[in-house]
Amino acid sequence: MNTTFLPVNPPQRLLMGPGPINADPCVLRAMSSQLIGQYDPAMTGYMNEVMALYRGVFRSTNAATLLVDGTSRAGIEAILVSAIRPGDKVLVPVFGRFGHLLCEIARRCRAEVHSIEVPWGEVFSAQQIEDAIKQVKPRLLLTVQGDTSTTMLQPLAELGEICRRHGVLFYTDATASLGGNALEADAWGLDAVSAGLQKCLGGPSGTAPITLGAAMVEVIRRRAHVEAGIRTDAHRDGEDEMIYSNYFDLGMILDYWGPERLNHHTEATSALFGARECARVLLEEGLDAAIARHKLHGDALLKGIQGMGLETFGNLEHKMNNVLGVVIPQTVNGDEVRKLLLEDFGIEIGTSFGPLAGKIWRIGTMGYNARKDCVMQTLSALEAVLNRLGLRTTQGAAMQAAWDHYGERR
Amino acid sequence: MNTTFLPVNPPQRLLMGPGPINADPCVLRAMSSQLIGQYDPAMTGYMNEVMALYRGVFRSTNAATLLVDGTSRAGIEAILVSAIRPGDKVLVPVFGRFGHLLCEIARRCRAEVHSIEVPWGEVFSAQQIEDAIKQVKPRLLLTVQGDTSTTMLQPLAELGEICRRHGVLFYTDATASLGGNALEADAWGLDAVSAGLQKCLGGPSGTAPITLGAAMVEVIRRRAHVEAGIRTDAHRDGEDEMIYSNYFDLGMILDYWGPERLNHHTEATSALFGARECARVLLEEGLDAAIARHKLHGDALLKGIQGMGLETFGNLEHKMNNVLGVVIPQTVNGDEVRKLLLEDFGIEIGTSFGPLAGKIWRIGTMGYNARKDCVMQTLSALEAVLNRLGLRTTQGAAMQAAWDHYGERR
Repeated sequence: MNTTFLPVNPPQRLLMGPGPINADPCVLRAMSSQLIGQYDPAMTGYMNEVMALYRGVFRSTNAATLLVDGTSRAGIEAILVSAIRPGDKVLVPVFGRFGHLLCEIARRCRAEVHSIEVPWGEVFSAQQIEDAIKQVKPRLLLTVQGDTSTTMLQPLAELGEICRRHGVLFYTDATASLGGNALEADAWGLDAVSAGLQKCLGGPSGTAPITLGAAMVEVIRRRAHVEAGIRTDAHRDGEDEMIYSNYFDLGMILDYWGPERLNHHTEATSALFGARECARVLLEEGLDAAIARHKLHGDALLKGIQGMGLETFGNLEHKMNNVLGVVIPQTVNGDEVRKLLLEDFGIEIGTSFGPLAGKIWRIGTMGYNARKDCVMQTLSALEAVLNRLGLRTTQGAAMQAAWDHYGERR
Repeated sequence: MNTTFLPVNPPQRLLMGPGPINADPCVLRAMSSQLIGQYDPAMTGYMNEVMALYRGVFRSTNAATLLVDGTSRAGIEAILVSAIRPGDKVLVPVFGRFGHLLCEIARRCRAEVHSIEVPWGEVFSAQQIEDAIKQVKPRLLLTVQGDTSTTMLQPLAELGEICRRHGVLFYTDATASLGGNALEADAWGLDAVSAGLQKCLGGPSGTAPITLGAAMVEVIRRRAHVEAGIRTDAHRDGEDEMIYSNYFDLGMILDYWGPERLNHHTEATSALFGARECARVLLEEGLDAAIARHKLHGDALLKGIQGMGLETFGNLEHKMNNVLGVVIPQTVNGDEVRKLLLEDFGIEIGTSFGPLAGKIWRIGTMGYNARKDCVMQTLSALEAVLNRLGLRTTQGAAMQAAWDHYGERR
């Protein structure tokens, strides 16, 4: 056994891919705070603050707003396994990889999964989704708001009203979009939303903020089950089939975050400190201001890429603010470009998978990296690398186009 | 929405309960490192180092040694849901709360759960467990090594050979014991072990190191299933029923940590940095030296508590090195003592639950807090608080007894 490893000392990178991105240094500082006990009044106070802060981030008054201790897909699975009873019908509009993921997780929950698809690079109209709801009559509609695999943002604002009319529970995975694109959990009639920190919220992967409306909480409560090790005579099980996971049983997680503070897992304190700081910094800036910032820098990147003469991917009307698909020019090798960017400039941009593998790069401008200097550095380095590999560009046009967008022509 | 929250600034606490305890400052520093991309060679290099380091911690050569992104019970559930097919028989020897938890999680996996019990404060003989195996003929034996609810440590060394003879897969939850008590995954014939950082490893809750032997990996591989969004023609599903969780599908997690690096979750980078530092610091000290340190300070605390005239709980022959049950004297209120210790000394000791609620305190000496100053401060403060509440002690005898144990009588 080699025990001579040195302490962690990662190389400096500018992470301009589809996430994770560089964490806000404030968040890392918060995470380096010393621990406190699980039931210390200071700790339960922080937990309550996290709930309040994320209500602001989700634009919701939901009491059931909390963290699932795991990466963003842990938040997805917690909601799906808690809500879906085996045999329940779910409808998933798939417009990229993360729609497939929802189907996959729902199948593991033994749902009867129905999906509709559009080609990668497009999104669904509300009418298409309502038509499918009428046909399938699902118990849940499972959507992805922003699918980084295609860079597209599915409009959700009209879907809540449709779901209400058809008695369907409405969930969205907002991992990649929250904080950089508008999301109004209450106004849009969302019954459940899950997210992660590693995109527009400027934190590390590892904890998943979620919010649950009253209807979703009721569905979950009907499946209540209290552990033998800590149950008392006052605890009663619900009438529906129990949730087939202990770790993701949101009823138990709600009781841990709620006034009863019934022990479940040991809350991941450092991650909670980080999640709290992500939300605190975001709300200090103002949610609308943060979304506008993502749009500003996303658009500046777009202008720069177009100024470089490169093609973009997908329907730009429905592009997420925080990530752009760039068609890889046929004369260069996409992976070689990424390698040179990483090795010689310390800049990471994203590759792609599925039908887009080898066809597009994905460049992110999100969270702490939704900044002018990040956009300018990335454009500058990308142009130099492409030139190095023999692709001719109008020198500097990309930077000037981005600058123009910022309104600072010199 | 109140957006005037200040940055996290937790009060200073000395955490002398059953865990979580204060994190080693080295670990917090590692966790405050800036992020790098998921497939950055530096990141995959760190992942490989984590695997190597935890092989040292688990005393195993298992290739399948990695982290599950969630708290320690996420590690438990990942192993159980990946190994247990619905209807499989499992045997759980229950000697405290965490045995009940294994039963609970196994039930959620739709296992046919059989348990045997001893009173809280005792452990099982190998013979008792073999008798039950003969009777039940389970596919898996699910054990807890150290159950903090009772402070007892179940001897495991003989069980692997028994399991092999009866064709049973052998798992233990070593969350509370690993790093502070001997555990030899390979020598003891363990097919799977899971742990957490927040006890003897001196880190925060939130990531679960696990190790899987070849037999366990084969069981998991027979249930392989690759996500539609990333599968290619080269991928094939296994012959057994698929695993009913995506997040905890250890086959997929193995493919993410293995040479294929097939995307699953986005690794919780900060937690991984912390987990790496926990193992690095532990192996730098030496695993045997760390276990001896836990025994030294655990025994010093025991001598001190006895010197104070207090009774201890359970069979001391089978006590974990890192936590002690102390019978609450009838003349004081246990919660009032804990409150005074926390508020006036900044020291946290543990309460109890289940049959021990209100009857014992649990005092930990583990990880970064398995130190002489922590033991002496805790004894001193506890005596002062008990005196304040009217309990008479031979003044200072506790500290002198602990000092004697350290061999530094003055």
